[in-house]
Amino acid sequence: MCGIFGIVGSSEAARSAFLALQAIQHRGQDSCGIATIDRERFPFVRRLGLVAQAFAPEHLNQLPGRIAVGHVRYPTIGRGVLADAQPLFFRQPGVHLAHNGNLINYNELVGHLAEHSVHLLTHCDAEPLLCELALALQERPRGHTLDDACAALARTWERADGAYSIVAALILDGKDTLVVARDRCGVRPAVWGGRSDGAYVVASETTALDALGVEARGDVGPGEALFLREGEPPVSRVIRRDRPAPCIFEQIYFARPDSRIEGRTVYATRLALGRALAREWRQLGRRADVVIPIPDTSRPAAMALAEELGLPYREGFIKNRYSGRTFIMGDQAQREDELRLKLNPIRSEFEGRRVLLVDDSIVRGTTLARTIQLVRSQGATEVHLGIYSPPVLHPCYYGIDMSTTEELAARAFVLEPSGPLSEEHQREMERNFARRLELDSLTYLSVAGLDRTWGGPRCAACFDGRYPIPVSAERRREIEADRRLGHERRQATFRFVG
Amino acid sequence: MCGIFGIVGSSEAARSAFLALQAIQHRGQDSCGIATIDRERFPFVRRLGLVAQAFAPEHLNQLPGRIAVGHVRYPTIGRGVLADAQPLFFRQPGVHLAHNGNLINYNELVGHLAEHSVHLLTHCDAEPLLCELALALQERPRGHTLDDACAALARTWERADGAYSIVAALILDGKDTLVVARDRCGVRPAVWGGRSDGAYVVASETTALDALGVEARGDVGPGEALFLREGEPPVSRVIRRDRPAPCIFEQIYFARPDSRIEGRTVYATRLALGRALAREWRQLGRRADVVIPIPDTSRPAAMALAEELGLPYREGFIKNRYSGRTFIMGDQAQREDELRLKLNPIRSEFEGRRVLLVDDSIVRGTTLARTIQLVRSQGATEVHLGIYSPPVLHPCYYGIDMSTTEELAARAFVLEPSGPLSEEHQREMERNFARRLELDSLTYLSVAGLDRTWGGPRCAACFDGRYPIPVSAERRREIEADRRLGHERRQATFRFVG
Amino acid sequence: MCGIFGIVGSSEAARSAFLALQAIQHRGQDSCGIATIDRERFPFVRRLGLVAQAFAPEHLNQLPGRIAVGHVRYPTIGRGVLADAQPLFFRQPGVHLAHNGNLINYNELVGHLAEHSVHLLTHCDAEPLLCELALALQERPRGHTLDDACAALARTWERADGAYSIVAALILDGKDTLVVARDRCGVRPAVWGGRSDGAYVVASETTALDALGVEARGDVGPGEALFLREGEPPVSRVIRRDRPAPCIFEQIYFARPDSRIEGRTVYATRLALGRALAREWRQLGRRADVVIPIPDTSRPAAMALAEELGLPYREGFIKNRYSGRTFIMGDQAQREDELRLKLNPIRSEFEGRRVLLVDDSIVRGTTLARTIQLVRSQGATEVHLGIYSPPVLHPCYYGIDMSTTEELAARAFVLEPSGPLSEEHQREMERNFARRLELDSLTYLSVAGLDRTWGGPRCAACFDGRYPIPVSAERRREIEADRRLGHERRQATFRFVG
Amino acid sequence: MCGIFGIVGSSEAARSAFLALQAIQHRGQDSCGIATIDRERFPFVRRLGLVAQAFAPEHLNQLPGRIAVGHVRYPTIGRGVLADAQPLFFRQPGVHLAHNGNLINYNELVGHLAEHSVHLLTHCDAEPLLCELALALQERPRGHTLDDACAALARTWERADGAYSIVAALILDGKDTLVVARDRCGVRPAVWGGRSDGAYVVASETTALDALGVEARGDVGPGEALFLREGEPPVSRVIRRDRPAPCIFEQIYFARPDSRIEGRTVYATRLALGRALAREWRQLGRRADVVIPIPDTSRPAAMALAEELGLPYREGFIKNRYSGRTFIMGDQAQREDELRLKLNPIRSEFEGRRVLLVDDSIVRGTTLARTIQLVRSQGATEVHLGIYSPPVLHPCYYGIDMSTTEELAARAFVLEPSGPLSEEHQREMERNFARRLELDSLTYLSVAGLDRTWGGPRCAACFDGRYPIPVSAERRREIEADRRLGHERRQATFRFVG
Repeated sequence: MCGIFGIVGSSEAARSAFLALQAIQHRGQDSCGIATIDRERFPFVRRLGLVAQAFAPEHLNQLPGRIAVGHVRYPTIGRGVLADAQPLFFRQPGVHLAHNGNLINYNELVGHLAEHSVHLLTHCDAEPLLCELALALQERPRGHTLDDACAALARTWERADGAYSIVAALILDGKDTLVVARDRCGVRPAVWGGRSDGAYVVASETTALDALGVEARGDVGPGEALFLREGEPPVSRVIRRDRPAPCIFEQIYFARPDSRIEGRTVYATRLALGRALAREWRQLGRRADVVIPIPDTSRPAAMALAEELGLPYREGFIKNRYSGRTFIMGDQAQREDELRLKLNPIRSEFEGRRVLLVDDSIVRGTTLARTIQLVRSQGATEVHLGIYSPPVLHPCYYGIDMSTTEELAARAFVLEPSGPLSEEHQREMERNFARRLELDSLTYLSVAGLDRTWGGPRCAACFDGRYPIPVSAERRREIEADRRLGHERRQATFRFVG
Repeated sequence: MCGIFGIVGSSEAARSAFLALQAIQHRGQDSCGIATIDRERFPFVRRLGLVAQAFAPEHLNQLPGRIAVGHVRYPTIGRGVLADAQPLFFRQPGVHLAHNGNLINYNELVGHLAEHSVHLLTHCDAEPLLCELALALQERPRGHTLDDACAALARTWERADGAYSIVAALILDGKDTLVVARDRCGVRPAVWGGRSDGAYVVASETTALDALGVEARGDVGPGEALFLREGEPPVSRVIRRDRPAPCIFEQIYFARPDSRIEGRTVYATRLALGRALAREWRQLGRRADVVIPIPDTSRPAAMALAEELGLPYREGFIKNRYSGRTFIMGDQAQREDELRLKLNPIRSEFEGRRVLLVDDSIVRGTTLARTIQLVRSQGATEVHLGIYSPPVLHPCYYGIDMSTTEELAARAFVLEPSGPLSEEHQREMERNFARRLELDSLTYLSVAGLDRTWGGPRCAACFDGRYPIPVSAERRREIEADRRLGHERRQATFRFVG
Repeated sequence: MCGIFGIVGSSEAARSAFLALQAIQHRGQDSCGIATIDRERFPFVRRLGLVAQAFAPEHLNQLPGRIAVGHVRYPTIGRGVLADAQPLFFRQPGVHLAHNGNLINYNELVGHLAEHSVHLLTHCDAEPLLCELALALQERPRGHTLDDACAALARTWERADGAYSIVAALILDGKDTLVVARDRCGVRPAVWGGRSDGAYVVASETTALDALGVEARGDVGPGEALFLREGEPPVSRVIRRDRPAPCIFEQIYFARPDSRIEGRTVYATRLALGRALAREWRQLGRRADVVIPIPDTSRPAAMALAEELGLPYREGFIKNRYSGRTFIMGDQAQREDELRLKLNPIRSEFEGRRVLLVDDSIVRGTTLARTIQLVRSQGATEVHLGIYSPPVLHPCYYGIDMSTTEELAARAFVLEPSGPLSEEHQREMERNFARRLELDSLTYLSVAGLDRTWGGPRCAACFDGRYPIPVSAERRREIEADRRLGHERRQATFRFVG
Repeated sequence: MCGIFGIVGSSEAARSAFLALQAIQHRGQDSCGIATIDRERFPFVRRLGLVAQAFAPEHLNQLPGRIAVGHVRYPTIGRGVLADAQPLFFRQPGVHLAHNGNLINYNELVGHLAEHSVHLLTHCDAEPLLCELALALQERPRGHTLDDACAALARTWERADGAYSIVAALILDGKDTLVVARDRCGVRPAVWGGRSDGAYVVASETTALDALGVEARGDVGPGEALFLREGEPPVSRVIRRDRPAPCIFEQIYFARPDSRIEGRTVYATRLALGRALAREWRQLGRRADVVIPIPDTSRPAAMALAEELGLPYREGFIKNRYSGRTFIMGDQAQREDELRLKLNPIRSEFEGRRVLLVDDSIVRGTTLARTIQLVRSQGATEVHLGIYSPPVLHPCYYGIDMSTTEELAARAFVLEPSGPLSEEHQREMERNFARRLELDSLTYLSVAGLDRTWGGPRCAACFDGRYPIPVSAERRREIEADRRLGHERRQATFRFVG
């Protein structure tokens, strides 16, 4: 995943980007970048590491101008090197662009660009997007207008298949123009806001706006492009719209709880999911003495679940904010060291109790198995696990790097899944999985329960296998192969585990 | 504050220190160090920054040996430079020593050492401690024994006044010996544990033992010294013992919740303090709709308080794990930026509600005032604040750098305090302070309530002004003057605020 | 000044660039870069600092491909930041380009590019050159051929006025193609060579070829472009040719002595210049006891001069290879410290002798004055100075950053100069300048003497004010103003002094 | 080798050390350090790398005080890690000490110290020296006087066998006192000087004094200790004196040419050695057309030799100041790359000529063989080599890390040598060695020639095997074994080769 940001109409554009990117840093910690337009120049600075460490005042000084776009990156396909950091730049016409999401016809686009003698520097999805956009602009006569950009975006959206939001800075009608656009289904998020002084801000999440004290005005719509210029009313155009399908996994795990999407906080959604899980748990007639979240994500859901069930809610695990590397020993021992460093249980909350652990999801499940053993060793009489989302049975091809098909732990307990599991099927699968994990019970939220809670359109492909933007079998293979390569290269295990 | 660690009898002594120090990193983030004994050599590595970043495999390779001591440092008096990092070394006899706490007769000791031609490198408390210990050992004939060390410690404890725990590595009776000792009142903490293979571990908190999977065997007693050697039973000696007075502020704020002190987890103590505050709040007849902790420390207390009062508990603030520097703008604007980056409220949890915020303590109170305004701006109809400890009215001279007398926010609302406030006096002071903070009410826990909850001996000098280890007026002035100097030097504000 | 390098047809293209750039590192120490083509990708790595320190194996690993171009940079106009490092990249068609020299119509080009919606990142001369070249290529249909590139270069050479050599890597006729080209007068140098395995190498100086063990095949001609492809014969085209005017200052000071230009080593030229100066000195009837070079550049000339005059040649100054910063003190004291650290005299070579110092040139003259005083303090009875080039009276607008008009020390001693000084005029000027420098005599080589020695066409505009590529008064003002700005920005004083 | 420095009586003591160490940086580039005394504190800063890069203003700010000692280090036995950097510190009494040279009874001393419970941190020679000195001081009552220090030095000189100079800073008679002392034969150098303001400076070489503009007053005598205090006359004491034997290899290779030892510049000695070699060459009836030094060391000798023989002197090799790493390829190829990068020949100076190369010495001879081949490839008709010192046949145990016995290239061509070679024997050995090196002739200076030129006492053990300070066979084995270990550890090859 990645985070994008843009601002126009500020005398402190680069510094605002520097602050706001820290507020969406959870979306990517690998590299970061800020780019501005200063009349005839399009300077940028890209750095490895966290925004607060990577940028120094000298870097902001290299970034004059009243418009800025920024990016934080978690590498999905690329190589985790500086060259792959964003925003990326095209010279003719000058465009800075950053994106969040995943192309599904990357190789096809690279071929198309090569036909037009456009050559790439990186292995980063954003680069063909940028180049297609610039190519489409070049077909229009110089002195590009907003209409030109609209037509070029439409052309790009047609060619570049996938789920992505972009932010771009360029000059249209002779003015600094900030553009934000979402894919046709609105899978990846993007929000915008404005300040009374005529400045506009766009970002992956509202937390970036909050960090600047800028009022959020709403979500960018699926397939919508918004053109923002200092002191002018925003111009909205629909580029290409399908049925909306915003990623439900942002709600469950990825987004910050204080983010507001479609007028609701992620936090409120997680409370509701916790309550929904409570109801399913009650129907199954299960019993526990205490509810304990596996930190940090599952806290609100666990809290609501406890409230709904009338059970005490306790912080049975203390998470170490400072745990880091544990080098020197072999792999297995090292992972145990890492878990021990990261998560410390409070024995008194477990001992002699029937414990209901709550977590957001299970993807690979490796850390989870060790966590359960840890709980057992604290003297819990029963260990139950509630997951406030359905079983993850399908990889995400839309930008969440949640491992490849064969790594999805839950898949081992269902026959070749197609579409959502029936409730019966799900409960059976839970029993088998629980046995493997040495749990007294495992309770997922059902897909039906998820839908009742959320109540709106959504992409839940990772749960039900229904991909709103079609991905052919061949492309799936390509994306998973790239991902395997990426995993090997990085070594460092993705934090996202279950 | 600082954290100390020691291990003896391990083939991976340095690596264990590296892991365990990460588990007490919350006690100091400025610098860190590890020292070992490898037969005739006493190597050490000291580094600036966090353990996980500062140490690389090459550093551990420079640290062979089966005994190690380690340290993480938050500078109280020193200069925040590498020279002040610990452990420190004395050559004759070879001693590595690290400490946590504060000397109150530092200048006197420096003078005493100068008389004996012992010269210092640093401005660090641990250095005169180390040198006094070595001097005392030198008075004994070579080939030091455990009894020699005991006598030397007794001499050192006599000369070096203050509240401190130390850990030291040296050779006694020809064997690697790990020593841990606590001041006569046991103000600063120290725990120890052992492994079935004959290894021993000591640390400031049990979390360091948990990180290594080592079983805690208990607290080191006030004025006790423990001598630990591989495969031998521990030898305990009382060096100099007064009435025990373990720091209650460790329980309230400083220690990790999963630490166990005197058989209780800090977490459990915080739950109990929350319940105690709930009772006092109820007696005052106050009302609220929701309980919201100011993260992270106050979570358990807030949870228990909510449970006790039958009110919903909610995480109304989201804390940004990545917030960092906000440079370039002026001071005031910068601080507001910092708060906005660090703490984001969930409006729905505040809007239209009577909110009871819970925090651990109020020291300077600067961030607190802004936090309250933030809550008001979220539409709360009433804002109440519960503090699960009494008003901080006196500086700590025992190692917690909690600002100087004039900076203690609560002092402005009481006449010259001596001894604990009467309950009546406290309630009046709360009313005045609440008015200043624009709160609907402010409720501290009373000292009586604290004592009923804790039930044992404690140093609560910051609350009641009763210093178990006497500190003369002159020494108080000296320590506060040094501290002011230190504050100026560091610029960076201490996270500890209210 | 800068150094350029290119290679095609090598399985170790990036590593060869890494080695060869070290052999032309004297041409620029500010930043460096290497770029390659690897089928559809055009990766590059740019770094601040010296090649040997700045590049690590991980960087070379990011640069696969059989073609590479490289650059070392001394900033003339730019800002000394990473963004200004070369080679630079254009996406459509993919071109990597690096240059050495100076544009004289930079602002005009920037305007022209803006009209075509081409936007710039940097303040670097190479960027408009690159963009003009790419624009000209875009006018041709896709699948660019060598003829297309030729036409595009012709167009670029027409638009971009100035003195520069470029090296570029791009795909022509579907093949990796290395292009090297010189300005119409051949002011800035460029050489090429080949290996029996079909690889070709180009560079600013032959030392880069020597470092790779590649045989030099000759200089690229003025206005010539050479197209090099693995295993194919080189293709030479004349783009635009004027009267040749290679920079004579490369011979005198800038180039490495072991470089071969037009079949002669720079070393041999310096020997000859030393002998020519000896003859002029003899004609003036001057006397000395010993010849001492001011290291390092003037050694060969001093040696030949001594031989010609039958005087002993001695190394009276020892240069410290390790002298660096001298911070903390004020400016004047600091500079004296720096000279003392850098240059230490051997008293015995000066004491009681009439000393003839030899240097290459006098530009600002600030260090020179201190050096003369140093010699006086060593007990020399007379101090004479021989400069084996004529007085520098005019700024260079062609890429040698030899200060602005008002800073040229020699100008204070002539009336408004136009054209070369008469010999009489020169001798008078020498007397006046000598008096100011407290020298017993100062002897420059005359322009006539220089020409007799060199014997071929040359740009000697810094001596005679005759600029082979016309520079209007307005452009001169612009370039000098930029240079003043650059000087201020850099603070660090340019090593080039006299 | 290492370089030492000390200053007392300066308000800028640390900064002076920073400057002066740059002037003796050629004696060690591995690490550096500065230590001062500031009343009751003894701060120090030690860093890896070159002085000019390693020290920043913030480091000098940590070093107040009017007395400073400093060190630059080339590791002979130690591990090249920060822990081994000097100066080293002892606490009781406070002593900062730095040394240059080699102990020959290191292990014995370590044992002795262990008996006295003195423990070491490092593997550095200076540490037992420091500890012995401090131990000896401790035997005296507190309030140490100059006489105490004298007695302690005498004791230390007795126990610590070897060739070393030391500089120390401590408090004697209540005053900051700078001590410099040389071993009993004066093998390793040390000089001192003073300023009219009462400040004193000591160093390994006069270049350090020159860098500060301080007048040299002379060499410290063999076995002499000099006690220097601000504004007081220097106090000289003889500690322990044997027949003087200053290292002749300092003259030949190691010292800077501008250094003055015993009133003569090293430069003048090298001129004389060149002339002496010329005479021996002439007697052998050999012929050449041109004299070319292998840079940098051999320049003055080659110059004088050429003058003496009436042959032209030419700089046929250009040395690259910027050559650095050549990583990635295998060893052999890499070394050739390195030579090519480092040394580039000027063909015109070699082609068709009988060339007489001049170098200072041959130790391992590996680079030399490649250099000769390089000269052959430039078309020289004959290649002769003159070495202005005798054959190196014996390892140095006194601090010059000139490889181990088996690595000395010349030893392969003589039978087990004892004492100096007869001239006949030497000439025969030269013939055999020349054949191996594919030289037309090889001419070393004879030991007799060396002695006639130098004219005074000297240690020339590396040439004649007569070690002025006896080293038992066992200790030789120990030292060489340590050295082999050190070589392996460092990987990087020593610059000192042929």
